[in-house]
Amino acid sequence: MFTLPQKDFRAPTTCLGPTCMQDLGSSHGEDLEGECSRKLDQKLPELRGVGDPAMISSDTSYLSSRGRMIKWFWDSAEEGYRTYHMDEYDEDKNPSGIINLGTSENKLCFDLLSWRLSQRDMQRVEPSLLQYADWRGHLFLREEVAKFLSFYCKSPVPLRPENVVVLNGGASLFSALATVLCEAGEAFLIPTPYYGAITQHVCLYGNIRLAYVYLDSEVTGLDTRPFQLTVEKLEMALREAHSEGVKVKGLILISPQNPLGDVYSPEELQEYLVFAKRHRLHVIVDEVYMLSVFEKSVGYRSVLSLERLPDPQRTHVMWATSKDFGMSGLRFGTLYTENQDVATAVASLCRYHGLSGLVQYQMAQLLRDHWINQVYLPENHARLKAAHTYVSEELRALGIPFLSRGAGFFIWVDLRKYLPKGTFEEEMLLWRRFLDNKVLLSFGKAFECKEPGWFRFVFSDQVHRLCLGMQRVQQVLAGKSQVAEDPRPSQSQEPSDQRR
Amino acid sequence: MFTLPQKDFRAPTTCLGPTCMQDLGSSHGEDLEGECSRKLDQKLPELRGVGDPAMISSDTSYLSSRGRMIKWFWDSAEEGYRTYHMDEYDEDKNPSGIINLGTSENKLCFDLLSWRLSQRDMQRVEPSLLQYADWRGHLFLREEVAKFLSFYCKSPVPLRPENVVVLNGGASLFSALATVLCEAGEAFLIPTPYYGAITQHVCLYGNIRLAYVYLDSEVTGLDTRPFQLTVEKLEMALREAHSEGVKVKGLILISPQNPLGDVYSPEELQEYLVFAKRHRLHVIVDEVYMLSVFEKSVGYRSVLSLERLPDPQRTHVMWATSKDFGMSGLRFGTLYTENQDVATAVASLCRYHGLSGLVQYQMAQLLRDHWINQVYLPENHARLKAAHTYVSEELRALGIPFLSRGAGFFIWVDLRKYLPKGTFEEEMLLWRRFLDNKVLLSFGKAFECKEPGWFRFVFSDQVHRLCLGMQRVQQVLAGKSQVAEDPRPSQSQEPSDQRR
Repeated sequence: MFTLPQKDFRAPTTCLGPTCMQDLGSSHGEDLEGECSRKLDQKLPELRGVGDPAMISSDTSYLSSRGRMIKWFWDSAEEGYRTYHMDEYDEDKNPSGIINLGTSENKLCFDLLSWRLSQRDMQRVEPSLLQYADWRGHLFLREEVAKFLSFYCKSPVPLRPENVVVLNGGASLFSALATVLCEAGEAFLIPTPYYGAITQHVCLYGNIRLAYVYLDSEVTGLDTRPFQLTVEKLEMALREAHSEGVKVKGLILISPQNPLGDVYSPEELQEYLVFAKRHRLHVIVDEVYMLSVFEKSVGYRSVLSLERLPDPQRTHVMWATSKDFGMSGLRFGTLYTENQDVATAVASLCRYHGLSGLVQYQMAQLLRDHWINQVYLPENHARLKAAHTYVSEELRALGIPFLSRGAGFFIWVDLRKYLPKGTFEEEMLLWRRFLDNKVLLSFGKAFECKEPGWFRFVFSDQVHRLCLGMQRVQQVLAGKSQVAEDPRPSQSQEPSDQRR
Repeated sequence: MFTLPQKDFRAPTTCLGPTCMQDLGSSHGEDLEGECSRKLDQKLPELRGVGDPAMISSDTSYLSSRGRMIKWFWDSAEEGYRTYHMDEYDEDKNPSGIINLGTSENKLCFDLLSWRLSQRDMQRVEPSLLQYADWRGHLFLREEVAKFLSFYCKSPVPLRPENVVVLNGGASLFSALATVLCEAGEAFLIPTPYYGAITQHVCLYGNIRLAYVYLDSEVTGLDTRPFQLTVEKLEMALREAHSEGVKVKGLILISPQNPLGDVYSPEELQEYLVFAKRHRLHVIVDEVYMLSVFEKSVGYRSVLSLERLPDPQRTHVMWATSKDFGMSGLRFGTLYTENQDVATAVASLCRYHGLSGLVQYQMAQLLRDHWINQVYLPENHARLKAAHTYVSEELRALGIPFLSRGAGFFIWVDLRKYLPKGTFEEEMLLWRRFLDNKVLLSFGKAFECKEPGWFRFVFSDQVHRLCLGMQRVQQVLAGKSQVAEDPRPSQSQEPSDQRR
């Protein structure tokens, strides 16, 4: 269960992770990938209810106890992200700056997107776009979203605009759903490793916890894979939460998965949904990487493609343009749910998550365009695949095992052999050596991975940056980095080959 | 104190107010003006803490208790706003449709704004605008906001970009400030009548209440005016809240005021700020109509123009483009505070209130443009003044007293003589007669006015709509509307002339 420091929110713990940097960024709040929410060398108390007097550190503070908790999330990101932003790599101006392989952004297609968004049809300014509008989103946009999702999710029946709510990104949607589905202090199940920023998305406003379904890399049978989610593990995590007195209200599924780059098969999806129905749990299915499946052999299926949802009134799907269109700064996300109570309650909160009418118009123009299917996606997938091939071949050349199934922007890399004692402290030291050698990565603890030594490498960047980044990684692992002050870890521990 | 129905959030009360329509709009969430949060003919229980089990109406609901409360705010807006949106006036297509004098939007300057936003300099698309950025807002924008506010607020010293946080509108800023400054269940003082949507802005996520400082129209001395806020009234309201066991954390001031169209003098502002400092209260100063002071004789002063703030660490100023630039659909607002803890905590929540990088770029282009001062504001003020003159002369011709001081988009109209018994039920019936006669207004109860019979008339619209709207108002008041099913109220009660 996620924990927070309790005694003094005005002196936050130092950031210990690369993903904090992207994530909780104090001067820059970027990817929100991962989570740096605890100091690894101390045992932190359980997250209390927001507003709990025990969280108030001082009478002199200008903030409420929850305000200090919220600020703590920002401050805790200081070290890593500030380091990066003070010294960003630039081919011409700062060639010795930090290469960012930590933030999950697609930097391969700005040329395509910039071209598309600069076309004349994007520049409409009319009164209705400048006035108050439906908080669910303009109807013209919700109609396009419904058509878009129907087509790209391969829905068996046309999806309906009245089930669509648009807002300014997936983070907001997690916040809104947590608040309208749960009472304060209740929990969602989530399999780990997972996109750690969800912790704060459900907590900062909603005061909701995450109950982890811990997965591991061990392969236990013919039909299993590393970090495989099973109904047995879901049942066990649910029982554990109950035994701790935590009420679980839902399950969060991410497919394609972040950081694993994995997808759930239709059969797996069906099993998880049936499990959720059995326990009357809501399911939030985050499909924010749905169009970033670059490997044709991967049989990705959206949950919206299933013939029949076991519990459609408790199944809520989210998608956004941040990842699939490489536009995390554009702030566009959408909910699809057949539950009109949920849609309405989320819409009611959308007065705080609204996006500009001008952007809504642009998104409608984009989503309706066959250019997506004819030009953008083929090119995007080709570029993702080439970048993925480059990094995975580099890893193979270095003898480093990894997981990657052909979706998303990242490779889940097994650096356990570089941690002699196999501790999270060593994981952190290794991460810091990477940063000191000017390459920013995300460490596994930030994704609540239970095995120390896993790192997420983002590959969706230009090859010259990837090349330099991988060189710097190799230097650290070979003990050749100029700044390595710690004794080089032994490489004697041979990990199992989990490359896929 | 604001109250909510408690027993069944799935069967919300009917909307009884025009401002609900703009405000809590279910199919359209627009102005957020006013508040329709209680059924007038029933005594509703006190708002409980969010998550209070007593609020849970049924085990079968898919929503949490707070989710039902949030949905209730939406549903309660059904009647009025739906009625309007099903039958909107259109000069050509629906000349007998409803004229909207209820939503506080400036519809006089779309030509100017559309022209400006369509210029080539607005169309920039570059990678940094499409990537994750500083959640406080891009630095280039915060720099322009600081310069803009320094100039237009007449700050004695240049304002600083590090004190600026930008986000998607004033509603979000109220939500964020309530959450980071208060524990759940605490309160802000607010003088009434006030912009009623603030109730939900501080409540839906933050679970904060408003403690009303009730003002009335009686003029008690030479230097006073109707609905005048005084320190004595603030002290009394604070004592009352304390006696009810409510902890007050701050004071909300709106200047220019909505719905009064009033401004606070520098001396008044100073008094209120000193009062707040004495009680260690935060002050949120909402200056969202700051550039909509169209009467030159009005000596409007921003709080940021004061030589010295009594308690700068507890003084937080908000502004947005919604009103002053007639762009409520653009979703741009900003906080200015010297308190870095508050700025940081709000910024941490801005991951849920972020606005597109493309819009941030456009706003920076707009705010730095001398066109604002040279073209837009003079023309906007001239148009506002002409529209205001038209409606106020119509009111005078009808013998209807009103308040209006030359700021904002509205006139606060005294229709008390049309309520024989002087009850809120009559106010509601009169409002409904207006709506039945195809003119939408905002009634005083929605602003928590303690005197039944006040209505807010929005005049910032094209003259042909104002003309038709005023004709329809006159028909109702003269008992000549075709739909008047209720007995016409007596006009024998002579109100004092509060026209200014």
